[in-house]
Amino acid sequence: MPDAVLKGERLAISRLLTEVENDTPAGQAALNELFLHTGRAHLIGVTGAPGTGKSSLVNQIALHYRKAKTPLNVAIVAVDPSSPFTGGAVLGDRVRMRELSGDSGVFIRSMATRGSLGGLATATAGMAQVLDAAGFDVVLIETVGAGQSEVEVAKLAHTVLVVDVPGLGDDVQAIKAGILEIADILVLNKADRPGVEAAERALLGMLKLGHPTKHLVQHHGHVEEVLTPAEAAADDWLIPIRRTVATEGTGLPELLEVLAQHKAHLQASGDWQRRERARLHTQLQELVQHTLLAQWRSTISEERYRQALDKLVARQLSPRQALQTLLP
Amino acid sequence: MPDAVLKGERLAISRLLTEVENDTPAGQAALNELFLHTGRAHLIGVTGAPGTGKSSLVNQIALHYRKAKTPLNVAIVAVDPSSPFTGGAVLGDRVRMRELSGDSGVFIRSMATRGSLGGLATATAGMAQVLDAAGFDVVLIETVGAGQSEVEVAKLAHTVLVVDVPGLGDDVQAIKAGILEIADILVLNKADRPGVEAAERALLGMLKLGHPTKHLVQHHGHVEEVLTPAEAAADDWLIPIRRTVATEGTGLPELLEVLAQHKAHLQASGDWQRRERARLHTQLQELVQHTLLAQWRSTISEERYRQALDKLVARQLSPRQALQTLLP
Repeated sequence: MPDAVLKGERLAISRLLTEVENDTPAGQAALNELFLHTGRAHLIGVTGAPGTGKSSLVNQIALHYRKAKTPLNVAIVAVDPSSPFTGGAVLGDRVRMRELSGDSGVFIRSMATRGSLGGLATATAGMAQVLDAAGFDVVLIETVGAGQSEVEVAKLAHTVLVVDVPGLGDDVQAIKAGILEIADILVLNKADRPGVEAAERALLGMLKLGHPTKHLVQHHGHVEEVLTPAEAAADDWLIPIRRTVATEGTGLPELLEVLAQHKAHLQASGDWQRRERARLHTQLQELVQHTLLAQWRSTISEERYRQALDKLVARQLSPRQALQTLLP
Repeated sequence: MPDAVLKGERLAISRLLTEVENDTPAGQAALNELFLHTGRAHLIGVTGAPGTGKSSLVNQIALHYRKAKTPLNVAIVAVDPSSPFTGGAVLGDRVRMRELSGDSGVFIRSMATRGSLGGLATATAGMAQVLDAAGFDVVLIETVGAGQSEVEVAKLAHTVLVVDVPGLGDDVQAIKAGILEIADILVLNKADRPGVEAAERALLGMLKLGHPTKHLVQHHGHVEEVLTPAEAAADDWLIPIRRTVATEGTGLPELLEVLAQHKAHLQASGDWQRRERARLHTQLQELVQHTLLAQWRSTISEERYRQALDKLVARQLSPRQALQTLLP
């Protein structure tokens, strides 16, 4: 399977992605081999509140990478929410992506969010690595929603696009604030709507308020906690705002230009390596945690766990006392 | 310290909350003793998008519990976001709570979100247990934001209030959808605004779409995965919608009535015990995970971890191969 994936065979890629998503032994073994061939793709996270047109934007980014003088191979991983409330709308977005499906330089994969966030991040990281090894130059990772999963995406991507639209009220501005922290590039989509200037001013104001360049370092610098002055200077990326109308392809060439600039900036400043290292650190920590828990579960019978929980519920043991009965 | 807390001495409570928030050995020891005195308080989670007036509503709920024929003792734990973007507004809300601070039957505590979500949930659970043991009849847990932390609150509370306001656009409706899943009671605050009927119809529509009573069982039923038909019938709580104008105290008596009804329903249906058990299960799992990781860290030198990460970044090892070098 790994050889066929390295050759870019679509059926093999598709099958391996399923194995990786389900964390099977076959998937783990293949990832071991393929990992040595990763590290080349530009991972781009695309996030923002529902209704901002993220899916259309992701489609258009892919189309424009394909239409470039030197066309790039593009993979899209769309992380769908499992919520029954929003499921319908998201499926609708997925269908629109079929306009890209005849192109062999484009690979699209949806995955449902499930289980713990840690599990989702691990699965998404693995899937991005498969696509990286398979030779895709760009991997677009699109998430739905506005919460913790966006932070997980940021840890995974080299470049984070946060998408906004004009005309949302103040209440939504507050919701968006949390996502702004992880942005490398801001996109004001649906920019033909009224209120685009006001929306851009509001975004600029929030950016100034939050000193985002400083935060950017904090968010991605888990491993190297202190930057040298030279590194800090090199990290001086001023978050740009670009206007688009994704449904008409307006503003896409300019957006691709700034994406290329950010990649160049990451490489020149050493941030590419730093983010790479921070991401792999996170992934390794999650693996350690999963493995330790799995080892522990294999030593504790269900009966023993149930007894400890019974005593806890009956207030005969405190949580820490119950814990003591469950450790080797 | 535990004795003074059991007697309800405010300074002792305040100090212990700090110890528990920081997860100190003294805090852990005190929680061990106090835990046997918990299980009496009604834990109420209050959540919703920023701008819906949650803090004012929480203030008013506390005031009305104090003004009741049989006044109840009320504690408030306000979980503040650490985001520099929203910090200011939230601090403003906290200041307003001072109108309650002269009353010895009310205890208010803010905590900053920090570190991992798991850590936050553990800290909040511990603080709620301290306040429960200290004799507060009601513990209101208010979170800011609209993401994963709300789900953590749901696991912590017996009753989850989700707060909404009229006049938010469709985009926000989609954001809210994820929070609706965890609601036991919906509050339409700022109900003197135009559009309140439309907002209520929209909420009813979303509730029907999501079959919330079924979800409610799924969310809280980690331990007991399958309900007997009798249990399923008893779980037939139809999520009520109540209108309030928190700034004027309008609708608060009706809201307190439905809170009492939900508590009675939980006790009659066995859901009180089920949620209790699910919550303690979650807490025990988190403790196990923290402890296993801490034990592992004590066996691995920083140097050894750094070497594994170096080889991972250089693609000399895959994540799973790096993991193998780090296990005992």
